[in-house]
Amino acid sequence: MTIVDSPRSLLTALKADGVLQQGCPSRTVLDHISSKWGVLVLVALAERGQRWGELRRSVEGISEKMLASILRTLEQDGLVHREAQPTIPPRVDYSLTTLGEELATVLLPLVAWVAQNATRIVSD
Amino acid sequence: MTIVDSPRSLLTALKADGVLQQGCPSRTVLDHISSKWGVLVLVALAERGQRWGELRRSVEGISEKMLASILRTLEQDGLVHREAQPTIPPRVDYSLTTLGEELATVLLPLVAWVAQNATRIVSD
Repeated sequence: MTIVDSPRSLLTALKADGVLQQGCPSRTVLDHISSKWGVLVLVALAERGQRWGELRRSVEGISEKMLASILRTLEQDGLVHREAQPTIPPRVDYSLTTLGEELATVLLPLVAWVAQNATRIVSD
Repeated sequence: MTIVDSPRSLLTALKADGVLQQGCPSRTVLDHISSKWGVLVLVALAERGQRWGELRRSVEGISEKMLASILRTLEQDGLVHREAQPTIPPRVDYSLTTLGEELATVLLPLVAWVAQNATRIVSD
């Protein structure tokens, strides 16, 4: 992965893409995925598709409102697929789209690093 | 990088670490680094150490208050090093610590992916 191999050249590319610039679409997307809850929902779905209730249990502590809002945004971004089953009671399954799976592969190493270093960081 | 090679086994490890659980320190750290502004500040500093004013220009649109608050948190987390020069006018340099550089290597691929896919996502 050249990306990982040379952060510097990547940064030059990012600058060229204007990733730090105002009004750049990447800012909007970063905003959507880079919230603590957004990350946790994506990690949970990266493990496997889940129903609403499972997802609420997976991402311990998330409120119904927050989960609904995050899933709506991720679905609009084309990262999460929502499938409502015509059953009684209604059943809704959520899963990552191909784009979402792609995102997960670059998101997970970050989350793993945080998991490995969090205690050290917080106790600092 | 096994992390990138097998997201599934990583996720099992994350579960074991209780990364999704309430009160897990990783939640606090995720909260600190996974904000749009936090990410942009880390990306800017990953390129090179910068003075306050340079940083404000690099991360276009960030408010003085937001930049100050983010730098304080990242410094407390041991990710950013703050060095005040005893000059007149006072000069303060900010740079990534070794831990911050470590974080940058896993954060940059994510930001790069977002930069590459943002337009597609937002236009969806």
